[in-house]
Amino acid sequence: MASWVPVPEGSPFPLHNLPYGVFKPRRDPSAAPRPGVAIGEHVLDLSVLHEAGLFDGPLMRPNSHCLAQPTLNAFMALGRPAWKEARATITRLLSSDCPTLRDNAALRARALVPLSEAAMQLPAAIGDYTDFYSSREHATNVGIMFRGKDNALQPNWLHLPVGYHGRASSIVVSGTDIPRPRGQTKADTAPAPSHGPAKTMDFELEMGFFVGPGNALAEPIPVDRALDHIFGLVIFNDWSARDVQKWEYVPLGPFNGKNFASSISPWVVTLEALEPFRCEAPPQEPAVLEYLREAERTTFDIALEVAIQGERMAAPATVSRTNFRHLYWTMAQQLAHHTSTGCNMRPGDLCASGTISGPTDASLGSMLELSWGGTREVTLAEGEVRKFLQDGDTVVMRASCARPGLAPIGFGECVGKLLPPR
Amino acid sequence: MASWVPVPEGSPFPLHNLPYGVFKPRRDPSAAPRPGVAIGEHVLDLSVLHEAGLFDGPLMRPNSHCLAQPTLNAFMALGRPAWKEARATITRLLSSDCPTLRDNAALRARALVPLSEAAMQLPAAIGDYTDFYSSREHATNVGIMFRGKDNALQPNWLHLPVGYHGRASSIVVSGTDIPRPRGQTKADTAPAPSHGPAKTMDFELEMGFFVGPGNALAEPIPVDRALDHIFGLVIFNDWSARDVQKWEYVPLGPFNGKNFASSISPWVVTLEALEPFRCEAPPQEPAVLEYLREAERTTFDIALEVAIQGERMAAPATVSRTNFRHLYWTMAQQLAHHTSTGCNMRPGDLCASGTISGPTDASLGSMLELSWGGTREVTLAEGEVRKFLQDGDTVVMRASCARPGLAPIGFGECVGKLLPPR
Ligand SMILES: [Ca+2]
Ligand SMILES: [Ca+2]
Ligand SMILES: [Mg+2]
Ligand SMILES: [Mg+2]
Ligand code: NI
Repeated sequence: MASWVPVPEGSPFPLHNLPYGVFKPRRDPSAAPRPGVAIGEHVLDLSVLHEAGLFDGPLMRPNSHCLAQPTLNAFMALGRPAWKEARATITRLLSSDCPTLRDNAALRARALVPLSEAAMQLPAAIGDYTDFYSSREHATNVGIMFRGKDNALQPNWLHLPVGYHGRASSIVVSGTDIPRPRGQTKADTAPAPSHGPAKTMDFELEMGFFVGPGNALAEPIPVDRALDHIFGLVIFNDWSARDVQKWEYVPLGPFNGKNFASSISPWVVTLEALEPFRCEAPPQEPAVLEYLREAERTTFDIALEVAIQGERMAAPATVSRTNFRHLYWTMAQQLAHHTSTGCNMRPGDLCASGTISGPTDASLGSMLELSWGGTREVTLAEGEVRKFLQDGDTVVMRASCARPGLAPIGFGECVGKLLPPR
Repeated sequence: MASWVPVPEGSPFPLHNLPYGVFKPRRDPSAAPRPGVAIGEHVLDLSVLHEAGLFDGPLMRPNSHCLAQPTLNAFMALGRPAWKEARATITRLLSSDCPTLRDNAALRARALVPLSEAAMQLPAAIGDYTDFYSSREHATNVGIMFRGKDNALQPNWLHLPVGYHGRASSIVVSGTDIPRPRGQTKADTAPAPSHGPAKTMDFELEMGFFVGPGNALAEPIPVDRALDHIFGLVIFNDWSARDVQKWEYVPLGPFNGKNFASSISPWVVTLEALEPFRCEAPPQEPAVLEYLREAERTTFDIALEVAIQGERMAAPATVSRTNFRHLYWTMAQQLAHHTSTGCNMRPGDLCASGTISGPTDASLGSMLELSWGGTREVTLAEGEVRKFLQDGDTVVMRASCARPGLAPIGFGECVGKLLPPR
């Protein structure tokens, strides 16, 4: 099935994707942010479809005002049956054989905005953000560096998806520059700590999921119903100041080393769009406890890459290629564990996976691992080597799904440039 | 100065206090939540004053709609000059010699609601919540129990106010029952973890402050301007499942052991009301880094107590008496440190102090410390002893300020009952 909106070869946003985002039209700086879906090189303005009364299914007709708000929270709250109906409506309106928008020049002109004219915003007001630590390879690598090979994985790691609460206020959308933070650090050899610009700046390649319908306090989400509470995924860059983190994190966990910024890609790719890319999740041994046991152990096959472009470089250089499917703990297990005590989720909450590292040296999701704690140089290009990030470096993360016989889809990019300290 | 509203002897809410809260009138279940201040045994409905145009000062006249909203976030955002003007207006309207409300029976009937008729709500939509760990006595006690006397304080503890990000969604207002959470735990002697109702339930006696005006991302709040960003304080009970916390917290900090619930008292006591109770903060040695150095090292003298009432007990039994002034790290230092990396605060964010323990056995702020890790019994009453909380126990926290020659003020109570697991 094709769309009457042109979709260039290799576009991450064919008709089979339809990721949701929130944007402001650049030509009208006073316009309110509104939801859209990406199609080819355009954004379809969903608030225009709402005003035109085009969401005419039984679930969305009374609820399509949710698609004319400055965040997607209300739409996320509606749940999968409404999301499926909205997707079917949008798919129909964009299909080659549907004249409704295609042949209505005035409506089309209002509804279709070139991507270059759309200033992307955060897709949701994020109430709470949690960061997991679900890559066995990443946890093992960090463990070896910090505690040696024999105690690499903590005793709890294979029994529960370790996670911690993060800072929601400083989550920014792709394209936002990140000044190098100042912080308190202490070199191993220094007699006392000092305060100044962080020296060992890093990215963390992660994916995050947005929560759809939440759960009431004291009512855990069962693992086998968890996916019904997940709206979709974004690329997540958990910027980290390693020297700040190292000095502060014992015993209560990462705090200032993480809370200055996290970047997300603007387009939320729904589980509906990801469904064709479902695959097996890694086997778990020892067996997990009942509340984490899944009837079917599946995840999604999402190829990931990170590239860095220094200020003197002509193009970004790829430093890592890995895959979401490597994660030991699935999103369903994360959500079941997070709510197992009764902790309540709200629509628009964000849960990130933790750094996604693969099994090889070319698939590590952070500079900490790529440079093995700063002990080896990573070559980006002729004369450009890094142990950690330098001021002026732009970090570009990409995610996409491809399978023989299927139209590939993508997440677009999550981009951020590290600026000198303010 | 006295009020024409009767204030019984010993009331926590005399004219000098005027704490802010959000309530629904019980007689009208469909009424929207609205801000009020407590005075004696009544709530003054600020939305009624707004509608009557009684906020007539230059700062509040154009902004008094902030006091007719379902949360205090917009009012918190206005900042100290506006808060002072609002306080002056409310003080005048409630003073014995002011006829405006006193002699207008119709307006008075609408504006004054008996406390017993006010269903208290959360005072703000809490964007982010952070829990500090600022009591030297508490950190030392926990350190001795977990690591022994020689390594009680971690190396970073005297150099920075240790804190971690908490869960905002599960903060509830005083009076909300707390079902005992289920969670994953592992006994030291068990070969593997198990999942079930937490066994070692605890409270943590804390105070929390609400952030007023925030800061932009990448613009730290200097320590000597930090108090301008603080609206006021509440009592904070950080319910904790110790067995869950113990198994999960290495290396990324507390998560499920804390995120099922935290309770706050409904009335936010402002820094204006607390000003007469300012006192010296404990000396700091070694000297702190420049960004944490205060021109004047002051805090507030707030007496705190915790009482527990089991289901068979006729009245709560006090188990601890301590004081906010013992805290080693001040609120100004907490805020300066939290934002030192550029982390942005938003109006309505909440920062809790961490468990407040004093120097004696009678001033410990958690059952973990009172029972010394479950090794000794705490006697509540004839035949009622505890190591940790039992189902049916109601935890009552109180806070108040008294000084010779000054009218005492109070925070009221923060109450919660531990229910059996659902
Ligand atoms: Ca991370
Ligand atoms: Ca605490
Ligand atoms: Mg980060
Ligand atoms: Mg708690
Ligand atoms: Ni066009």
